[in-house]
Amino acid sequence: MAENAGGPRALKYGVTSNYVLGLDVVLATGERVHTGKSTTKGVAGYDLTSLLVGSEGTLAVITGITLKLLPTPRFVQTALAVFPSSEAAVRGVNAILDAGVLPRTLEFLDRSSIAAVRTMSPPYRFPEGAGAALIVETDGESEAGTHEALSRALDACGGAGATDTLLATDAKKQREIWASRRLLSEATRRIKGKKVSEDIVVPRSKIAEMVARTGALGEQHGLMTCSFGHAGDGNLHTQVLFDDDSELPRVEALLADLFRVTLELGGTISGEHGIGISKQRYLPLELSDDVIALSLRVKAAFDPAGILNPGKMFPDKLALRARKREQT
Amino acid sequence: MAENAGGPRALKYGVTSNYVLGLDVVLATGERVHTGKSTTKGVAGYDLTSLLVGSEGTLAVITGITLKLLPTPRFVQTALAVFPSSEAAVRGVNAILDAGVLPRTLEFLDRSSIAAVRTMSPPYRFPEGAGAALIVETDGESEAGTHEALSRALDACGGAGATDTLLATDAKKQREIWASRRLLSEATRRIKGKKVSEDIVVPRSKIAEMVARTGALGEQHGLMTCSFGHAGDGNLHTQVLFDDDSELPRVEALLADLFRVTLELGGTISGEHGIGISKQRYLPLELSDDVIALSLRVKAAFDPAGILNPGKMFPDKLALRARKREQT
Repeated sequence: MAENAGGPRALKYGVTSNYVLGLDVVLATGERVHTGKSTTKGVAGYDLTSLLVGSEGTLAVITGITLKLLPTPRFVQTALAVFPSSEAAVRGVNAILDAGVLPRTLEFLDRSSIAAVRTMSPPYRFPEGAGAALIVETDGESEAGTHEALSRALDACGGAGATDTLLATDAKKQREIWASRRLLSEATRRIKGKKVSEDIVVPRSKIAEMVARTGALGEQHGLMTCSFGHAGDGNLHTQVLFDDDSELPRVEALLADLFRVTLELGGTISGEHGIGISKQRYLPLELSDDVIALSLRVKAAFDPAGILNPGKMFPDKLALRARKREQT
Repeated sequence: MAENAGGPRALKYGVTSNYVLGLDVVLATGERVHTGKSTTKGVAGYDLTSLLVGSEGTLAVITGITLKLLPTPRFVQTALAVFPSSEAAVRGVNAILDAGVLPRTLEFLDRSSIAAVRTMSPPYRFPEGAGAALIVETDGESEAGTHEALSRALDACGGAGATDTLLATDAKKQREIWASRRLLSEATRRIKGKKVSEDIVVPRSKIAEMVARTGALGEQHGLMTCSFGHAGDGNLHTQVLFDDDSELPRVEALLADLFRVTLELGGTISGEHGIGISKQRYLPLELSDDVIALSLRVKAAFDPAGILNPGKMFPDKLALRARKREQT
């Protein structure tokens, strides 16, 4: 809740906050309060519920959640499409959505991610020259409709230049396709001893440019990178791989450049993992001083003594600077 | 934006806040700030955007909006189902959703609403004994899929006891069906000289009980009422009809009872119209004093001098009481 988590199905189903109707919380000042409603609609008072979701434990302690539930879709169908390049894969993403198909997932792997997965001998052997891949999954209440949507998606991929497509005809094939994506975290960890996993988002039309510029930043800083993630909503889990902590200054320099490029392309530095401690120094790249000052006033309205997750999300120095400005 | 407006299609498409990615606002303290993001996902900092949407102009002045857009659905099909009672219509609503159909609208009219529409000689003549009606509309990218979903919805209505169904086969018939709903506002205004139009929401399973208890409250207070609205999300536009202002004390007494019953059934006093001035005295029925005090601290964080829409949403006396408590 405090993270506003997303995931691969956010393209169709949205993120955590889209399902939270109400919260029971304990305030820093001791009161137990209930926010929100038990109905899907409701506008009585401020939307404190949405403010609390994703607040990273800095505003209140959540003790109860009222969720909106959806029925599990009856049918799910999965396919994989291989492209010669990230550009072609992104054309595929747009062609699928332009065709009026809203898949529940559109997972993207770039060339380096495919190379990383290959080291783990996945059940699906990517063809030589595979430059990018998409895992496309549709779901619905009708088997024919779910299948028809997936067929249209694969046709769209073909039109965008896909060189190979694989339609899972049973649950085993479905698992084999997903293995390529699920092995990625372990695969990228094994290549080098250490890695940093980021969580940037760019507008969908900028994914290919972001992937290319990430590769260029890797070369510039002498570090291996790869990009994979949720292409439907532009959320890329950029990986920076390195051998030991002596490389950390270069990693940090690369990350600062990565976030600058992300923001230059109209993106955000975190799609679903949050700011916490590790990204708080970069928050002022995205949010203006005035927004940070306003956020700290909201924080003070909830937590006047600053006892909830101190030092998280907002950098301490900035907190001081903002408070100083308020006093002048 | 400041209202977080809903409407008849909220069942499938959600409300305004579901489409607002970012806002440009001018703060009461003069700063121009941008909140939110240009991407569908993003969790950097607090969700100030959702807090501002629906804040009724009390937190900031909105000057720009970044919206998420959806393509217009290619096909829309409309039908009307007549039921012997509100209970049967609500069974129909649940049966439709249980069948896995998510219509874009599920408009409900109770017996009194049908009687009111009849006075306007609508193109569709409701049969004698019509105790309630649903307007069901499906949409989608495939004509066959849209039609199939509507057929399943009408089958579900039949199973729930619908006595008559009408499927619009062309745009003219579609308009004729909607006329019954669209004439309601004028029809209820004409019956008596004056009316109050409310905007309560109850859990879907409680709609029939709410309609019955609204009728009973009308008899108890000697006032004519009728209920219609968006059955899919439980949002009822309860109408209280009266002749002249001498009846206002009885109207107010009925409304206070109506809101108490709404909350007793797990609902909210406003689904989409907001609190403003006219409902602010009832807000403490729904929100605890602690939530109101917290909301006023948030208000003060945005607008320390209280210059934005003073007197709206929160009752002044309560504001004073909450502030007094803060000082002790």
